[in-house]
Amino acid sequence: MKNIRLTIEYDGTRYCGWQKQKNDLTIQQTLENAINKITKEENDVVGCSRTDSGVHAKGFVANFLTGSSVPGNKFKYAINSKLPNDIVIIKSQETSLDFHARYCSKGKRYVYTVSNREYPVALYRNYIYHFPKQLNVDKMKKAAKYIVGTHDFTAFKSQGSSVKTSIRKVFKLDIIKNNDMLQFSISGDGFLYNMVRIIVGTLLDVGINKIEPEYIQEIIELKDRTKAGRVVPATGLCLEEVFY
Amino acid sequence: MKNIRLTIEYDGTRYCGWQKQKNDLTIQQTLENAINKITKEENDVVGCSRTDSGVHAKGFVANFLTGSSVPGNKFKYAINSKLPNDIVIIKSQETSLDFHARYCSKGKRYVYTVSNREYPVALYRNYIYHFPKQLNVDKMKKAAKYIVGTHDFTAFKSQGSSVKTSIRKVFKLDIIKNNDMLQFSISGDGFLYNMVRIIVGTLLDVGINKIEPEYIQEIIELKDRTKAGRVVPATGLCLEEVFY
Repeated sequence: MKNIRLTIEYDGTRYCGWQKQKNDLTIQQTLENAINKITKEENDVVGCSRTDSGVHAKGFVANFLTGSSVPGNKFKYAINSKLPNDIVIIKSQETSLDFHARYCSKGKRYVYTVSNREYPVALYRNYIYHFPKQLNVDKMKKAAKYIVGTHDFTAFKSQGSSVKTSIRKVFKLDIIKNNDMLQFSISGDGFLYNMVRIIVGTLLDVGINKIEPEYIQEIIELKDRTKAGRVVPATGLCLEEVFY
Repeated sequence: MKNIRLTIEYDGTRYCGWQKQKNDLTIQQTLENAINKITKEENDVVGCSRTDSGVHAKGFVANFLTGSSVPGNKFKYAINSKLPNDIVIIKSQETSLDFHARYCSKGKRYVYTVSNREYPVALYRNYIYHFPKQLNVDKMKKAAKYIVGTHDFTAFKSQGSSVKTSIRKVFKLDIIKNNDMLQFSISGDGFLYNMVRIIVGTLLDVGINKIEPEYIQEIIELKDRTKAGRVVPATGLCLEEVFY
């Protein structure tokens, strides 16, 4: 028996997220189908996290146990040949048997991309959230500093997931402006349900002067979901990398 | 009667190019349908060029004559509300009656995007051509210099279009490498049928050492299509801007 670690890029547009579901198309199911064709086994693939419907990934990490004789670094060619073109294995390698893509993860980095111009986007529209209102990016950068650090992020969590604690550490939160494109790069030891998308929604509220930057601290302390911004759409979100 | 000039961004993936055809979905037809809903006229829309099936545009220019009372700069909102989300009017303005999007054009700039990495691309795959072989970019840049200038580009023209002359002036041809992405930015006074895509195909042949940079000059002089490279796919091509 050996343990194969995969790094995966996928376009989430067509999928109901990572996690297997009875009647919906998911990344996990599509990947397992492809792997089973190679191994002739019933492999369970462990993912580093559940990405939501429509969310993309450049560096999603997964692993599976197999008795197959295919060498670890050759699996990528074999699996890619069985996958649709919106899922691509970019790396495959044999790893130690105790490696578990979810439990061993020490953190993740997400990027959220906003097109901030008056007219909507035709090109790349599945990878971007279009936000037409004018933004004060300096204020947003000021606000982002309050997010960084170890906090109880209850105010930035959607209902629907049960977690032991809402305390998370955000390592870094950068806002990069490039012409009319805005990228939010956020890394942390873990993220609550919809946390990245609510943080971005709240920072956009700061950008349109609905919330003052200093008020972010109060939102965190109040632990009140209604004080933070809305959940921005999944299209703009991409899991960039996972730390181990 | 007034003349409305439009600047258009579109994702060409779903379309059989710009030019109206009897049974196929085209940008021109889709745009005319949208405009006719606003003006209640039978407007003919003139495009700056015919883009091929699958080719994209960020700054396509078109114009149409209308008796409508809608102010020039308001047309964009009206037309966008009638268009599918893969075509967006980014600018509309009233212009002089003698403006003609094709005849008045002084040149165009195209960008061709190549992903040069071993594994294919899941994200942005409709906007990119994946080329997995290793490339010598320095050699390609050297070869690109032979393309710039006024030449008879017969060797870089596909059959199927009748033009008076194959002499064109290429103003500039830059190759920009950014990690595993390669962008070819090419501007000129006009381009023959498939000319940009054959130039890129030929430069890729230089990159894999199939053709020496200096041989480009000979290909041009021989005027022999079989000596140049193949037509690379439409997906990577985008009309960036039109000069007037």
